[in-house]
Amino acid sequence: MSMIVPQRILIAPSGFKESLSAPQVARAIAAGVRRVLPGANITAVPVPDGGEGTAEALADATGGSLVPITVTGPVGDPVTAAWARLGGAARGTAVVEMASAAGLSLVPADRRDPTRTTTHGVGELIRAALDDGARRILIGCGDSGTSDGGAGALQALGARILDADGRDLPPGGGALARADRLDLSGLHPGVAGTEIVVACNPHNVLCGPAGVARVFAAQKGATPDQIEQLAHAFDVWAALLDRDGRPGALDVRSGPGTGASGGLGAGLAAVLGARLEPRFTALLDSGLAGFDLDALMARADLAITAEGAIDGQTRMSKVPAEVARRAQRTGTPVLALAGSLRDGSETVRDIGIDTVVALPPAPMPMAYAVANAEPLLRDAAERALRLIVLGAAIAAR
Amino acid sequence: MSMIVPQRILIAPSGFKESLSAPQVARAIAAGVRRVLPGANITAVPVPDGGEGTAEALADATGGSLVPITVTGPVGDPVTAAWARLGGAARGTAVVEMASAAGLSLVPADRRDPTRTTTHGVGELIRAALDDGARRILIGCGDSGTSDGGAGALQALGARILDADGRDLPPGGGALARADRLDLSGLHPGVAGTEIVVACNPHNVLCGPAGVARVFAAQKGATPDQIEQLAHAFDVWAALLDRDGRPGALDVRSGPGTGASGGLGAGLAAVLGARLEPRFTALLDSGLAGFDLDALMARADLAITAEGAIDGQTRMSKVPAEVARRAQRTGTPVLALAGSLRDGSETVRDIGIDTVVALPPAPMPMAYAVANAEPLLRDAAERALRLIVLGAAIAAR
Repeated sequence: MSMIVPQRILIAPSGFKESLSAPQVARAIAAGVRRVLPGANITAVPVPDGGEGTAEALADATGGSLVPITVTGPVGDPVTAAWARLGGAARGTAVVEMASAAGLSLVPADRRDPTRTTTHGVGELIRAALDDGARRILIGCGDSGTSDGGAGALQALGARILDADGRDLPPGGGALARADRLDLSGLHPGVAGTEIVVACNPHNVLCGPAGVARVFAAQKGATPDQIEQLAHAFDVWAALLDRDGRPGALDVRSGPGTGASGGLGAGLAAVLGARLEPRFTALLDSGLAGFDLDALMARADLAITAEGAIDGQTRMSKVPAEVARRAQRTGTPVLALAGSLRDGSETVRDIGIDTVVALPPAPMPMAYAVANAEPLLRDAAERALRLIVLGAAIAAR
Repeated sequence: MSMIVPQRILIAPSGFKESLSAPQVARAIAAGVRRVLPGANITAVPVPDGGEGTAEALADATGGSLVPITVTGPVGDPVTAAWARLGGAARGTAVVEMASAAGLSLVPADRRDPTRTTTHGVGELIRAALDDGARRILIGCGDSGTSDGGAGALQALGARILDADGRDLPPGGGALARADRLDLSGLHPGVAGTEIVVACNPHNVLCGPAGVARVFAAQKGATPDQIEQLAHAFDVWAALLDRDGRPGALDVRSGPGTGASGGLGAGLAAVLGARLEPRFTALLDSGLAGFDLDALMARADLAITAEGAIDGQTRMSKVPAEVARRAQRTGTPVLALAGSLRDGSETVRDIGIDTVVALPPAPMPMAYAVANAEPLLRDAAERALRLIVLGAAIAAR
């Protein structure tokens, strides 16, 4: 009898948009693994990516708290959002998850016009954290429903964005085409003494052919005309931020992360002096997440990650890509589970994901898969582990 | 560097009803395996089960030929069917695949009334083989669209089935409720000197609560009333076969295989003296299939089988169950691929299938999965092999 392998399993998934949070995903995978390897040493660490659930995860990990406040939502209606007051060694740090105030899930399907949605509520959350005396504010991007270049957030913090007639611009990225000058005289005074870090995907840039309007606005409901309208507006906005902001060494148009959350990165960096930091560096290497992914990886003989969908974009700094990147350093094999494997999913092998596994046990409607994601994920994890154990048994024969 | 395992892979699948023949399934799996293990020793043997494709497979394996003839189809319209004249060492053996003359796929969806469909064409195929001088006739069951107790086939061979007024019964199992006596004086004279073997699923029986009407007629389109009507008709038919046939030691009501193909087994056994033989014994252990599954299994370090759907019924002598049964003798691990994993699929572990894998890479409609079964199967086989190889690599670390 040979020892059953793998023995030490690291589960490090993302959440599944529209169905399961990252902790729910981690628990479901662990349940499936335990059915096959009841004696295995399993460590499950839901990986925050700056999007939905990030503030809660970091508050939970540091013994902090969530502070709920009502803010202006992306379509103008009030929404209850929250910022996190971290605890323990991270006391003094606030976490603002942009999706909680301006996420796509807060934009009703029939009002998905990204030329009009606003990040105003994100600015309100930042203001609340500043008023609370935060010395450091970490802003999580991801899952955004806006494309306003951060204009709304800046207005909420006292910046004025004026057209050629000296009138304040209305909400939305479309209006930025008329932006003529910035008046920063009324900016919240707390900004000056506070370290602001935007945890963003460095692949997202504000302008150009790979700019955020052309890459992401369609997902937020933009028509082809609106995409070009936004792309033009961002060109105007970038020029203005360059002239009237304080971009320092930042390349506003194409610096890494300037396109994060519909251009929120560019606005916060150029006006507030926020630092744009790769999100997994900001979230995982800061100690804020409550675990040391590299140390856990070094001890694992299998890493399991997951995401709602895996496709050709997954390589671009999604959670499975980050898990694979760290796994390659320690030579740890990686399995990725996905609700859907789409075109290009095979390319993740190039970045160190050894194999991918899909959830559906049979043809089924998407709505059924979303509604039953938890048991489907558990069962898919079980089936995948049985194949791995089978391979180990064949090797041991 | 450790040796990549598995090295010797046996692929032994069934066909996927409504989408791929067994040879197509075998080729698609082999293509997926080769992507992962280009140097592996792969043996692919499509496993005939008596249903669609069986006559062709056996003709192909023995160097024989298919003899096409026009016969009465299950709903009375003429259909082009074929029997196989085997070659090589099997010369003198004919194969009649009942599905080619009376299969469910020959019954239009709007005419699925199993109280009326007939096996008359099956009798015509048997007659053609007898007229050709066959010394042995192997009859494959499976995929049937009829529930007539074999009455139509017997009539085609010269038997008369009469009601109380001495009139010949019309086609269909429903009429058997009025069957009063058999007149076998006109039976084809070739029957007497010919060995007739029915390759059937021994779990299928003619009468009783687990009888073929109650277990299978619904799949053929019977309403609940028609199911009870057929169950009653089979009781009458069994009593008549017992009295006027030559059942010998056969238990017409509940002997193994009497329910095969809507009771065709009972009719042929009790009237023609056909032997009801478990289908995989008849097909695989006879040498007719052109390969020795047990010998191949003994040399394999992984067996891969497949079926369109795997559920709680798979254990009941489907192809994956037979592959697993033989694999257990040699301790060969078994992986089963399925288009759909349904309720009870986990029970196949009890019969020696180590793990199951589903085809869909994402939620999708059944029609899409059927139309794309070949690439989906190839890709699913590839993903499964990658997990097995991953497990082997972990074991080797």
